[in-house]
Amino acid sequence: MNDLTRLIEERAIERMMYEYSHALDMNQPDRLADLFVDDCEVSYAPNFGATGMEAYKQTLEGIGTFFRATSHHNSNIVIDFTGDGEAEVRSTVLAIHRYTKERPDGILYGQYFDTVVKRDGEWKFQRRELRTTMTTDYHVRSSHPIGRRA
Amino acid sequence: MNDLTRLIEERAIERMMYEYSHALDMNQPDRLADLFVDDCEVSYAPNFGATGMEAYKQTLEGIGTFFRATSHHNSNIVIDFTGDGEAEVRSTVLAIHRYTKERPDGILYGQYFDTVVKRDGEWKFQRRELRTTMTTDYHVRSSHPIGRRA
Amino acid sequence: MNDLTRLIEERAIERMMYEYSHALDMNQPDRLADLFVDDCEVSYAPNFGATGMEAYKQTLEGIGTFFRATSHHNSNIVIDFTGDGEAEVRSTVLAIHRYTKERPDGILYGQYFDTVVKRDGEWKFQRRELRTTMTTDYHVRSSHPIGRRA
Repeated sequence: MNDLTRLIEERAIERMMYEYSHALDMNQPDRLADLFVDDCEVSYAPNFGATGMEAYKQTLEGIGTFFRATSHHNSNIVIDFTGDGEAEVRSTVLAIHRYTKERPDGILYGQYFDTVVKRDGEWKFQRRELRTTMTTDYHVRSSHPIGRRA
Repeated sequence: MNDLTRLIEERAIERMMYEYSHALDMNQPDRLADLFVDDCEVSYAPNFGATGMEAYKQTLEGIGTFFRATSHHNSNIVIDFTGDGEAEVRSTVLAIHRYTKERPDGILYGQYFDTVVKRDGEWKFQRRELRTTMTTDYHVRSSHPIGRRA
Repeated sequence: MNDLTRLIEERAIERMMYEYSHALDMNQPDRLADLFVDDCEVSYAPNFGATGMEAYKQTLEGIGTFFRATSHHNSNIVIDFTGDGEAEVRSTVLAIHRYTKERPDGILYGQYFDTVVKRDGEWKFQRRELRTTMTTDYHVRSSHPIGRRA
């Protein structure tokens, strides 16, 4: 892959990640699902994730009524290409969740570890794993640790 | 527009957006105004905005004394070129406002929708619209909704 | 420097900055130190910084036990090349600190001003200065002001 191609592909991958956050914040599960390959693997926490598109779509059910609003802010994106049309991505996320129920906003500070693949000219998530740096008033109790050295 | 040009222009547009945030946080209204075209249209909320440079400059008056500090964090920038020297931009903003008065910090979680144009080699805002995802203790009560699906 | 090279170098500089944040959040002081040149100059606040690698390593001691977790979010990165293999960088940081002691999270809203240099093909910090926009419950009392106009 030459330098220019790499830059273009990196930008396309970043854009796809922003589309994910936007679709989530807009509560558009169909748009979200479109960003994953059929045989995707998603792990937001132990016992909270999905293998395959059908299972993933089920995890998306209910976000419309559970939250009044969410705001996802992505940054610190680091991309390593591992083959033709495949890359490993690490990034940082700040996600604020306002619940439908009366309770304080849940804040998640995390790191995404993604495997992305290019299928028919579009970058998609093959695997998305969320690791949790810390949370405040967040409804999900279990989490994948980031592995910070003690 | 070839690939390399597009990458360079995207970066220039992003930089202009960062200059906006920096000028705002430094309380430099003249620098802010320079980032807009004369016939600009700015809408931060219903009844809070401006048409044209003179009106825009008026909206900037008072930010120096109303806030002790602000911090604007931009991310998730998605750019679509719509013509020669023109683009539509969507982005995410986290903005913290510390008031001169004793009151809790006002936090804005939002999305910017911008039309940017290149004039004399410089990208400028033709139109800037803020849509509000949610707020906490924020002084502006009205807002353009992001249109999240219920 | 041609356009393509500039884009590649900018991306390499950004990545190095993300590695800094990641190493900090993972509590990996050796990885952090590797991102600085031997004759580095670091100033997080008046009387809180280091001149030279040995002094810098000492400032890193204790972060493992002082914090239970930190999360650094970088954005608004603006890069100006000042010579061959040298650049000035301004960026925005949101940093959340969860203390080992029972006390509220310390939040820092700041701006980094960096001088970065390319040594043996790797971008490193020659100088890193943190200016503080505002803080909430933060343990460091002194700070370099951003110089916001009153």
